[in-house]
Amino acid sequence: MKSFLVTMLLAGTFVTNAQNAEKSTIKQIYQNALTTPEAYNNLKELCSKAPGRIVGSKQSEIAIQLLKDQITKLNPDTCYLQKYSSPSWLCKEPAQAVLSYRGKKETLNVVNLGLSVSTPEAGIKREIVEVHSMKELDSLGTAVVKGKIVFFNRPMDNEKLTTFEAYGGAIDQRALGASKASQYGAAGVIVRSLATERDDFPHTGVSRYKDGIEKIANLAISTNDADKLSRINKQYPGTTVWIKSTTKNIDRVETANLIAEIKGSTNPGQIILLGAHMDSWFNTPGAHDDGAGCAQMVDVLRIFKQLNLKPANTIRLVLYMDEEMFQEGSKVYASYVGKEKKKHIACIESDAGGALPLGFDIDANDSVLYALQKQTEKLADFGVYRTIKGYGGVDIEPLKQYGFPLIGLLTNSQRYFEYHHSANDTVDKVSRREMQLGTASIASLVYLIDKNGL
Amino acid sequence: MKSFLVTMLLAGTFVTNAQNAEKSTIKQIYQNALTTPEAYNNLKELCSKAPGRIVGSKQSEIAIQLLKDQITKLNPDTCYLQKYSSPSWLCKEPAQAVLSYRGKKETLNVVNLGLSVSTPEAGIKREIVEVHSMKELDSLGTAVVKGKIVFFNRPMDNEKLTTFEAYGGAIDQRALGASKASQYGAAGVIVRSLATERDDFPHTGVSRYKDGIEKIANLAISTNDADKLSRINKQYPGTTVWIKSTTKNIDRVETANLIAEIKGSTNPGQIILLGAHMDSWFNTPGAHDDGAGCAQMVDVLRIFKQLNLKPANTIRLVLYMDEEMFQEGSKVYASYVGKEKKKHIACIESDAGGALPLGFDIDANDSVLYALQKQTEKLADFGVYRTIKGYGGVDIEPLKQYGFPLIGLLTNSQRYFEYHHSANDTVDKVSRREMQLGTASIASLVYLIDKNGL
Repeated sequence: MKSFLVTMLLAGTFVTNAQNAEKSTIKQIYQNALTTPEAYNNLKELCSKAPGRIVGSKQSEIAIQLLKDQITKLNPDTCYLQKYSSPSWLCKEPAQAVLSYRGKKETLNVVNLGLSVSTPEAGIKREIVEVHSMKELDSLGTAVVKGKIVFFNRPMDNEKLTTFEAYGGAIDQRALGASKASQYGAAGVIVRSLATERDDFPHTGVSRYKDGIEKIANLAISTNDADKLSRINKQYPGTTVWIKSTTKNIDRVETANLIAEIKGSTNPGQIILLGAHMDSWFNTPGAHDDGAGCAQMVDVLRIFKQLNLKPANTIRLVLYMDEEMFQEGSKVYASYVGKEKKKHIACIESDAGGALPLGFDIDANDSVLYALQKQTEKLADFGVYRTIKGYGGVDIEPLKQYGFPLIGLLTNSQRYFEYHHSANDTVDKVSRREMQLGTASIASLVYLIDKNGL
Repeated sequence: MKSFLVTMLLAGTFVTNAQNAEKSTIKQIYQNALTTPEAYNNLKELCSKAPGRIVGSKQSEIAIQLLKDQITKLNPDTCYLQKYSSPSWLCKEPAQAVLSYRGKKETLNVVNLGLSVSTPEAGIKREIVEVHSMKELDSLGTAVVKGKIVFFNRPMDNEKLTTFEAYGGAIDQRALGASKASQYGAAGVIVRSLATERDDFPHTGVSRYKDGIEKIANLAISTNDADKLSRINKQYPGTTVWIKSTTKNIDRVETANLIAEIKGSTNPGQIILLGAHMDSWFNTPGAHDDGAGCAQMVDVLRIFKQLNLKPANTIRLVLYMDEEMFQEGSKVYASYVGKEKKKHIACIESDAGGALPLGFDIDANDSVLYALQKQTEKLADFGVYRTIKGYGGVDIEPLKQYGFPLIGLLTNSQRYFEYHHSANDTVDKVSRREMQLGTASIASLVYLIDKNGL
């Protein structure tokens, strides 16, 4: 009995020591992240030297090289480009729009939506038809819409508690509006920016044309100017807008994902993946989307190196090109994994902005969710309080086919759609401390998954 | 038995109905707060028409009148000034500092600390002694310090998880540095701004002189310039700084707290208090500190009126003048409560900035804390997840003598000390949605306390 008791007591001691070691390491990770300037300096460098880094642009090449240099400095075990070719699309000149009513002209704040075609060189000048839903557009039909510019003006629903929810409820206008309007013979489309606040920034984002549809120019307008356009168009029938769009589709460009690893000391063939995307829209420094994600994931490697945390499994960083338009990079990587056949214990993405981390969104079965909740409970004192079923991320999504657990960093979304896909997504909108709490939360989660498994 | 079962079932139904009514009301409160622009418009009005509203200033009078007008529009049962007279202090001209070394001169970004005395008209030019703690100052003593300008340069500790904790660890330099330096014959003091980031904004705040101490001029310097001053002073012995301070103490000014009520329908003599402070430092629009708190508390009244929530107890709004310097307003109100003898069920303050609310800090006994935790659990879906022992707020603090529970809105503090007490505390740094989540959290808590007691 005595030896049993001693065994139990010793076991208790071991557990306590192990727990204390964990606690101590997690604390070190947070303290290191909060006091080390590298990640924020890296973000500033990316946004200042490679703004508008859409796939295929010169800026995207600068971004890849710059991030490779940032990673190489950390002396990881590997750092290489996963090259591939991809279609691309460029905005050759800033889109323009001018409102005309009662002899007055006013310039509107607009931007091309991604994949929008060009207008003729002289632009087009048409009357406006304002609609708020696809259903309303259907009800108007060709009789009203033909030859006009359709103006989609349904705001994001500010009642929603998270802005991502509100985004989901309004995105159909941007993604599918031009296709739908074209079916009824519209000459062009203007879409209210997907933004939670009223301001002068137009917000871009991807749009798609259905096969066989005549492609028409597709612009986004700032929320302030959407309100103005609506008001004036109601007040003065016959109001017109002249729009001009100058864009270019490119069949193939050479580009690459960027991959780096810290090899696992005991299970190098098992991967914990860190994902973020290097590209941004053409009109923005892309600080929150997704410069912050890149800076965080690179900094997770730095923390592991600097604190001399030797992972049992391989930590693999994959910085994707491109998330915004064709997601070719994520398909290329997923296809590579299919051949490589290395198990990914967890795939973690940061692409929800660099704001205060609140927890993790888990796209995995219930037992993995439960295991992750047990681990993330250890981060509660650091503000990680929500580990819930959710969406992992666009870049890691194709890895779902292999049954790998997908994990998205869950952040405070309240300001995200003031910045998202607009020129307003600048570094000063990212808080160094908030971004680094995200970095520390991810690094701690990697540490715990590596140590305790899932 | 049947009737007992029926009774139980009915009781169950009532509970369920009551819970549903609560849930539904709380949802309405959040939706209303998130979609109604009044509070943010009120904040913009306050910060644009009455920046620098330190007690006794013309701007403070404008603020009181403007807030009174904002409240009166809501048609509360009462709205009146609680007049009192108070000492005051004004910064008559912006403080100046010029660094001289090796024949070069550089202007430094400085601001007067609150209650700092003036220098002579021509300013003073002295050598610098840099210190990092009171202990270090003590160790140098009169031999080194006499006739010099003491430069307190200990940064806020970025390792701390909340910035309020880091603030607490550095504030001695600002609050007591001049007094201590004067004991050793210093001619003046420059204090590194209490800020978490490196930038060009000097941050003010109150400082005090011990009785009998010779009062010396006391300035804050931006973090960037503190780093520069330290570097140059180390590199070039004999470096001097010229400082000029032009301030004025005022014996008495007439000022007022602003009070408004929605009378309780069944217990009008019992109060739920909503507190915030109207004043701000002279050098700032005071958007987070504490314009946002004022806007939130006024908006709680608006929500109760607009949703026709008739409280059983009286909701009393007290907007205090002044929190920053002498806290006379809070003493005047507490003294009034001593005579009025109305029980305050809870005193809630918002003075931690308008950022994302995370929960509530409770300064009360354990049974009240537990009761509040039971209530705030109902707000978990809205991001309120921390109801913990903590500090209520400077304005409501004197009410502790009566045993009233004190409650402070707990917010995301990560960016607070980028703005606090500086010209950088502008409206654009406050997110409308985050501020309104705070408003809704307070309004919901008031609703729950009113309904369920403590």
